[in-house]
Amino acid sequence: MSASQVLLDLTAGSVALTAAICDIESVSGNEEALANAIMDALSTYSHLELTRAGNTIVARTHFGLPQRVIIAGHLDTVPLNDNLPTHWEQDSLGDDWLWGRGTVDMKAGVAVQLTLAVELTAPAFDITWIWYDLEEVDAERNGLRRLAHTHPEFFVGDFAILGEPSNSTVEGGCNGTIRVDIRARGLRAHSARAWAGENAIHKLASALAILSAYEPRQVEVEGLLYREGLNAVGVSGGVATNVIPDEATLHVNYRFAPSRSAAEAIVHMREIFAGFDVVVIDQAEGARPGLTSPIALNFVNAVGAAPTPKYGWTDVARFSAMGIPAVNFGPGDATLAHADDERVAVRQITECENALRTWLLGE
Amino acid sequence: MSASQVLLDLTAGSVALTAAICDIESVSGNEEALANAIMDALSTYSHLELTRAGNTIVARTHFGLPQRVIIAGHLDTVPLNDNLPTHWEQDSLGDDWLWGRGTVDMKAGVAVQLTLAVELTAPAFDITWIWYDLEEVDAERNGLRRLAHTHPEFFVGDFAILGEPSNSTVEGGCNGTIRVDIRARGLRAHSARAWAGENAIHKLASALAILSAYEPRQVEVEGLLYREGLNAVGVSGGVATNVIPDEATLHVNYRFAPSRSAAEAIVHMREIFAGFDVVVIDQAEGARPGLTSPIALNFVNAVGAAPTPKYGWTDVARFSAMGIPAVNFGPGDATLAHADDERVAVRQITECENALRTWLLGE
Repeated sequence: MSASQVLLDLTAGSVALTAAICDIESVSGNEEALANAIMDALSTYSHLELTRAGNTIVARTHFGLPQRVIIAGHLDTVPLNDNLPTHWEQDSLGDDWLWGRGTVDMKAGVAVQLTLAVELTAPAFDITWIWYDLEEVDAERNGLRRLAHTHPEFFVGDFAILGEPSNSTVEGGCNGTIRVDIRARGLRAHSARAWAGENAIHKLASALAILSAYEPRQVEVEGLLYREGLNAVGVSGGVATNVIPDEATLHVNYRFAPSRSAAEAIVHMREIFAGFDVVVIDQAEGARPGLTSPIALNFVNAVGAAPTPKYGWTDVARFSAMGIPAVNFGPGDATLAHADDERVAVRQITECENALRTWLLGE
Repeated sequence: MSASQVLLDLTAGSVALTAAICDIESVSGNEEALANAIMDALSTYSHLELTRAGNTIVARTHFGLPQRVIIAGHLDTVPLNDNLPTHWEQDSLGDDWLWGRGTVDMKAGVAVQLTLAVELTAPAFDITWIWYDLEEVDAERNGLRRLAHTHPEFFVGDFAILGEPSNSTVEGGCNGTIRVDIRARGLRAHSARAWAGENAIHKLASALAILSAYEPRQVEVEGLLYREGLNAVGVSGGVATNVIPDEATLHVNYRFAPSRSAAEAIVHMREIFAGFDVVVIDQAEGARPGLTSPIALNFVNAVGAAPTPKYGWTDVARFSAMGIPAVNFGPGDATLAHADDERVAVRQITECENALRTWLLGE
C-alpha cells in the first residue's frame, strides 16, 4: 500500500462512509485514489468476486440464487468549488446534513451500496455491484458504457438499481433527449444597402415564435407522468457589424417522454420546424419505467413511497436498452447535484440503506 | 530621397496617375511611402502651400478669392487580395478598365484631385486639398478626424467635395447609423427541468418578429430619397447545451435618413423595442444633402447629372457637422469598392476630371 493510500472502513455505517469517500476527491478523470481505496477495502470479503477494469470495480456474489440484481453507482463528481472537505450542519428543524461536493451526486448512494455489499452475506438475490468512473463527462467516456463493451457478461440480471439521487424514492425510467440545429440561410450585403441582401437572423423569427408558443406535453407512461421540454439552448449568427448575415443557427434541445423513440422525436422536430434546415447533433433514447415486472413491483412495494418519473437522462436508459428493467434509487435531492451548496440529509442516507437492505434480504 | 522612394509625375494625366498611385500599396497603416511620393511631387509647385501631419497632406492656394472649396480624399485602401499590381482590360463593349485594389476606393478620385491641384494655377475659388490616412479602419483613427482636432484652421470653406466613388455623379449627404444591443434576461435551469427556468433566447422571439415585419422608411430630404434599413447584424445566447440560457442578445444596426438625428433614432429604437433592454453601442449622425446653397447648386449644375443620395456613412458627414455643405463626387462604382474584382472605368476618371476642372475654372 502506498503512503498516500487511504484506509476505508466499510463497516463504519453509510453516513460516516459517505463523508469518508467524499473527502477522497474524485473529479472525473481523477478517480484512481478512490478506486484504490475501495478495492483494498473490499478485498478481505470472500463472498465477493472482484474485477477491476481501469477505475471501474465490479463485485459479484455467486450464491446460486434464482434471480440476479445489478446495483450500480458512479465514483466521479463534477469539479469542486471550494466545497471539500465535507462538513456537518444542523438545520433549524434539527435535521443533520452533510455538505460538500459529491454528497448528493452520488457518493451517499455509493456509501449505502458499499455498506450493504460487505454486510449482506445471505441476500435473497445474487448481486452484481458496479462502481464506475467518468459519468459526469461526455457520454463517449462513460465507465458503464465502456464496461458494457468489454465485459457484457456483467450485464446479465433481472433488475437494475442505479443509485442516482432520487430523495430515496423510486424514480422510473427517464426522458430521452435530442439536440438539433435549426439553420437559416440568407444573402450577404453591406448593411448600408440591406435591400440587396437577405437577413438570415430575421428568418429565425418564425422558429423562435414556434419555440416560444410551444406547449410541452405531459405524457403518462406505465402510470408515471413524464414532463417534456423544448428549448433553445443556443443561438448564433452575424458576420460583421456592417454586414447583413447570410447564416444563423438556433440550437434546440428536446427532452421527450420515453413513450417516444429518438427517431420519432426527430420526426417531430422536422414537423414543427418545417421549412428550416434541421440538423441532428446528438440523440439519446429515453427509458420506459419498467415497473411492470414482478421483481420491480416487489421492489417498489418494499420501498413504500409512490414511484415518480426521472426527468434527466441517466444510465438507467443503458440498462433499459439491454432489456433489464431499471430504476433510480438513491439518497439526496437531485436539484442540489452539481450545486455549490451540494448537501445531503443524513436521514435520507439511513432511509435508503434500510429500504435497500430490507428488500435485498427478502424480508 | 531614399532609394526606395518612387517618382510620381503629377502631369501624366489622371488615368495614368491612378495606376501609378494604386501600385504604391497603401493598406491602412501603411500609407507612408505613398504620402512621401506625393509630398515630393507636390513640392515643386509654388502656388500650393504644403502641410504634412503624419501621413496626411494639406495643399492650399492663397489667391485671395472670395470663396474657398475643400476637396479631400483618403490615401489608404482595405487589404489586398492578390489584386495588385493593377492591370488594364477592355470589356466586350470596347470600354477600358483599370483593375486592382484601390482603383475605385479611392485612388482614381485622388489622382483626379492631384492632377487638378498642380494644373489649376488660376482657379475661380481658393482651394484646400486634403489627402488623408486611415479612413478604412475604426472611426477613432480616421486621419480627417485627427486633422480637424489638430488643425481646425484647415476646415474653413464654403463647400466641400469628397472624392469617394459615386460613378462621377453628385451624391448628397449620407444616412446616419446606430447600433444597439437588444438584451433579454431569464433564469438558468437544467434543460431536463426547463420549467424551473426562464428561457432568455425564447424572449427574443418578439424582437425578431418586430425586425422581420419592419418596413424601412424612404424619406425625401431636400429632394433626395433616402432609403433606411433596420437589421440584426448579430445574435448570441446560450450557456451550455443542457442549460436554459439566462441571457440573449440581438445586435441591431439602424441606418436612418439624415432628416433624423442619432438621438431621435435611439428614441425610435426604444419605442419599437419597448419592454427590452436597449443598449446603445455606437452612433454616427447622418448628413443632410446640403445642396441648397448657391455654390452647391452651381456645382450640381456644372456636373449635369441629377444628384442622388449616399446610403453609406462617409466623411461628408464630418464636414456637414462643421456647417460646411459637402457632397461625394468621384469616379468608380461604390458596389465594387473592397471587392476582389475592384476596377474602375477609364471613361469615368476622365469625366470626373473634366467636370471638376470646368467648375473649378468657373467656366
